[in-house]
Amino acid sequence: MDQTPEQPLVTGADPQAEATDLEALADLLGVLAYGSLTASIRMCVDADAAPGLSVKSALVGLAADEYRHYEAVIARMVALGIDHEAAMQPFVAPLASYHERTRPKTWLEGLVKAYVGEGIAKDFYGEVAKFVDADTRAVIHAALVRERQEDLVVDVVRTAMKTDPQVSGRLALWGRRLVGEALSQAQAVAVERDPLAMLLIGGADLAELGRMFGRLTDAHRARMARLGLDA
Amino acid sequence: MDQTPEQPLVTGADPQAEATDLEALADLLGVLAYGSLTASIRMCVDADAAPGLSVKSALVGLAADEYRHYEAVIARMVALGIDHEAAMQPFVAPLASYHERTRPKTWLEGLVKAYVGEGIAKDFYGEVAKFVDADTRAVIHAALVRERQEDLVVDVVRTAMKTDPQVSGRLALWGRRLVGEALSQAQAVAVERDPLAMLLIGGADLAELGRMFGRLTDAHRARMARLGLDA
Repeated sequence: MDQTPEQPLVTGADPQAEATDLEALADLLGVLAYGSLTASIRMCVDADAAPGLSVKSALVGLAADEYRHYEAVIARMVALGIDHEAAMQPFVAPLASYHERTRPKTWLEGLVKAYVGEGIAKDFYGEVAKFVDADTRAVIHAALVRERQEDLVVDVVRTAMKTDPQVSGRLALWGRRLVGEALSQAQAVAVERDPLAMLLIGGADLAELGRMFGRLTDAHRARMARLGLDA
Repeated sequence: MDQTPEQPLVTGADPQAEATDLEALADLLGVLAYGSLTASIRMCVDADAAPGLSVKSALVGLAADEYRHYEAVIARMVALGIDHEAAMQPFVAPLASYHERTRPKTWLEGLVKAYVGEGIAKDFYGEVAKFVDADTRAVIHAALVRERQEDLVVDVVRTAMKTDPQVSGRLALWGRRLVGEALSQAQAVAVERDPLAMLLIGGADLAELGRMFGRLTDAHRARMARLGLDA
């Protein structure tokens, strides 16, 4: 990952700025942690509906990876003296809302949701890692290791589309819906959480923020293409 | 764990005996693997219904541990040249039936099920580890490490019972039902799977098998007592 010059977040000299920074960092780590925890739960619930041992196992494997990320982020919050339950609380409702509005109707939708959702989450982790102190960045990067289950997800989805060509149209629509709902919840969070918004906007100028969204969109499009779907 | 003298399972000199042994080992590892996978899924589904971040997180943590056990057992089957999907297949129906018949009606029942079920599973792992070769035994023992989430489960259940004394009677009944259903499915499996039954009976005389069930029952009773419940 290419690094731009950055200010460490939690080692500022100005006590006021430091307090704000720690608040922003609590927001950021709070949403990462609770996002991983809920993703883990959703993937397991979807695994329950999946037919066949290999798909079940792949989804539970992705879920276990999400839980490892959750644990790492919690450990970092503990090290920073952040109350991790309090930090996650503001994101309980938006994430519940996202998952409620994107409840898969088929196990294949569940699989695409896991793949697309984890992909976007990881790209976002990679982007925000630039804005935080070095130790926190190391925790975030550790959560970015590519997992082996992804290849199986791609294979299964591609095979399903070969068997039933109608599937691809429905899944392409589904992919767009997942991104739309994610963006709409992210916007709601940004409006509510000043410190987090300031961290993202303050760390980069607006042009850079635009480029960041461009990169996230491009990566999403590449992921959908890997599945054989239009984004 | 105290070790009794034992024959390594997969290194026998008689080719016929070796084939039977590998079949028995496939059964044993198959039920351990699929048991862990389904336990992992059920715990996550129950986590979904649980209120509060700490209970949710504890249940997903137990689920992630189960998935690690699953992965380790699968890796051992791969190393032994056992077709792991085929090995798990005979246990899909009995385990689905167990979980169907013990679907928690409350999140507290889910928590007790996770605690009691994982406890019995681990004790059983520890017992059967005596009957297998050294490498397989190492894999099984690695899955026996006590996990930190258990203390939280105990605390939460005890607190819930203080708040509502009626809870303890219902949960004690629930604990007995869990054990009853587990035994009834185990019996069905033993009738169907000769190699597995032979492994357990052949590895020990009947008196030893009786003592094994005695140890499992005692450990279950101790676990229920830790929760403040009669077994």
